[in-house]
Amino acid sequence: MTAPGRFITFEGIDGSGKSTQARRLHAALVADGQRAILTREPGGSPGAEEIRALVLQGDPDRWSAETELLLFTAARRDHLERLIAPALEAGETVICDRYVDSTRMYQGLSRGDLRARVDALHSLMIGREADLTVLIDMDPGVALGRAKARATAEERFEDFGLDLQRKMRAGFLGLAREFESRFRVIDGNRPEDEVAADVWAAVKPALMAAT
Amino acid sequence: MTAPGRFITFEGIDGSGKSTQARRLHAALVADGQRAILTREPGGSPGAEEIRALVLQGDPDRWSAETELLLFTAARRDHLERLIAPALEAGETVICDRYVDSTRMYQGLSRGDLRARVDALHSLMIGREADLTVLIDMDPGVALGRAKARATAEERFEDFGLDLQRKMRAGFLGLAREFESRFRVIDGNRPEDEVAADVWAAVKPALMAAT
Repeated sequence: MTAPGRFITFEGIDGSGKSTQARRLHAALVADGQRAILTREPGGSPGAEEIRALVLQGDPDRWSAETELLLFTAARRDHLERLIAPALEAGETVICDRYVDSTRMYQGLSRGDLRARVDALHSLMIGREADLTVLIDMDPGVALGRAKARATAEERFEDFGLDLQRKMRAGFLGLAREFESRFRVIDGNRPEDEVAADVWAAVKPALMAAT
Repeated sequence: MTAPGRFITFEGIDGSGKSTQARRLHAALVADGQRAILTREPGGSPGAEEIRALVLQGDPDRWSAETELLLFTAARRDHLERLIAPALEAGETVICDRYVDSTRMYQGLSRGDLRARVDALHSLMIGREADLTVLIDMDPGVALGRAKARATAEERFEDFGLDLQRKMRAGFLGLAREFESRFRVIDGNRPEDEVAADVWAAVKPALMAAT
């Protein structure tokens, strides 16, 4: 029987470099001969991508925060059971760019009263936390400049100002304190290679323990 | 300040005549000069109709029971907050053809272990039960013949055999016992006019109490 793989998520504000670092970690693992998949949320499986499109297309106010939360949770459930869980069971490392901590942070920010419901819904219908979460921590001003430079009309999540970027950063750092044993906070305000080296050092012990 | 309206749902197996009776009650209320709206699930609001289409189109196995439950709950949340709740607050009677009892019955039937989660999810994200639920109880064989006669390829819910119709009937009767104070069970094995008269007699006290 194969030992289950490790589930590693990346979080961070838009423009923090988390997606780049997730890709680099995946490439490094594959180059090292390990079996690993790279995925992302919202979306990640065909069904979840359809739900993602339903949520993100059209008027931003077409869904309430509660309905949006239910739709994203439906997408996560599909992603988990169709892609993430089977890969983990097959012994693969799963690297996921954003997961439930993004939902906790975003919903908690826009509607603080929803945070308890995000957690209750996650426990009830998802029930799987990451084994390790890499938070790429980044100066909000620098991150915003990067995010704006590449933003498209479709990317609602990028459509925030500096004040909101600051709040999002604080939100993620709060989650890192709340889930201390699972989080690794990496300083993203440095050259990409240095950040990648720190990510590797943070993740390696967890991957060694799995094999 | 307007007194809130009453929320009346109709349930029953396919071919039981519940949709006909829901329409007749609505017509009777409007003819009586009362403000009433008629709606149905799954769907009922523009957003909920889009989610309904996403769930019901394509391969029946494309969504797991859990994902489908989350999607239907998202649709219900949208329907409730965009159509049902505002109408009730404006003092209108809302008549809804199928609501959460259909979810309880269907999910409980296909996956008994899900019933507790259906209830927990409803409490967490919806929180509104009907004031009165009319169950049109019907011989499963007769109902199946009717349902088959009008079934279209799109209507997945109709695609059941007699044994399943019997189980669905038993499921609804079980809910009627569980939520005794809210349910009114009407014998649907009679001419439409007689059934309608019984529905009216069952609903009238609740509507009188509201005004």
